[in-house]
Amino acid sequence: MTFSTPARGLFEITGPVSDWAASKGIETGLLTLFIRHTSASLVIQENADPQVQRDLEAYMDRLVPDGDALYRHTAEGPDDMAAHVKGALTQTHLQIPVANSGLVLGTWQGIFLFEHRTRPRPREVMMVLVGD
Amino acid sequence: MTFSTPARGLFEITGPVSDWAASKGIETGLLTLFIRHTSASLVIQENADPQVQRDLEAYMDRLVPDGDALYRHTAEGPDDMAAHVKGALTQTHLQIPVANSGLVLGTWQGIFLFEHRTRPRPREVMMVLVGD
Amino acid sequence: MTFSTPARGLFEITGPVSDWAASKGIETGLLTLFIRHTSASLVIQENADPQVQRDLEAYMDRLVPDGDALYRHTAEGPDDMAAHVKGALTQTHLQIPVANSGLVLGTWQGIFLFEHRTRPRPREVMMVLVGD
Repeated sequence: MTFSTPARGLFEITGPVSDWAASKGIETGLLTLFIRHTSASLVIQENADPQVQRDLEAYMDRLVPDGDALYRHTAEGPDDMAAHVKGALTQTHLQIPVANSGLVLGTWQGIFLFEHRTRPRPREVMMVLVGD
Repeated sequence: MTFSTPARGLFEITGPVSDWAASKGIETGLLTLFIRHTSASLVIQENADPQVQRDLEAYMDRLVPDGDALYRHTAEGPDDMAAHVKGALTQTHLQIPVANSGLVLGTWQGIFLFEHRTRPRPREVMMVLVGD
Repeated sequence: MTFSTPARGLFEITGPVSDWAASKGIETGLLTLFIRHTSASLVIQENADPQVQRDLEAYMDRLVPDGDALYRHTAEGPDDMAAHVKGALTQTHLQIPVANSGLVLGTWQGIFLFEHRTRPRPREVMMVLVGD
């Protein structure tokens, strides 16, 4: 599944991921998501208040600043190495149990693609659903 | 499986998780743990010296302070947004191989539920064991 | 599989891991890697420019300094508690989909063992490949 991220930030993908999983006719199992990039990542976060996503993004921007004097890998712009560090501090893959043909996410859990680069780009997320 | 966390901190759950896995009669496989919350998380850490858990908690409290001026999501208290950030920096799920009907944890590895809120609350951890 | 890490840093293990997975004759499935230690971890990162690995290591060393006054677990040296924190902020396990008998890593993704202790040591990584 490919998602076009418009800019840096958290983009919820719970809907399309749930729909895809439901279409497979698996009642009980495990869904794995794997992002094929090192400057974008995956995270499960609260999806009720959009301020949570905004705050998480702002926190990560402060913790891992663009253009840090520490970086030597600067050829792809000031946001590139920061993006790699943010990717390492979050997840390349997620795994979510499936029961009664649905994802067993908690009441306030949503699945997010976390884009760390400032420019729009397509991001590939592999999904594998195993079960009965 | 539901755990009642008494307060913020790391709580070891290796015992009940191992017992549950052993009761399933699976010799070789994979155990997945998934926490259905975004303000508590899962982590594998050293369980020999309790100071390690204390230090990890103290480090995370300093790295992600309560009531940071950055946060806009403040309605649920000064520890709530900090809890979401700590959750994003640690794990929502873990996976541990099973061999000879036991978890193949290293000598000093323990499974911990990391509570990020200050008040006691029940936390649901889903467990899925797949194998032969 | 056991790897001997020479010192602190990121060591790419994509080659031996891919070879092991290919030798299993599984066409479609999921590979799980699990490290049996709490002061070394696993991460998927860019493997094209070695500066990325150097920058990620330098960033983590600054974020989680050796010998921090906060630490009480100091008996095993100034790098030990820092190593546990870095382990908690990165991954104890990874999971990578397999298709056409190969790992579906993105173009610039490599699998790295991230050693957090300063002295050489052997590190055990369990691998489980499930599929058809």
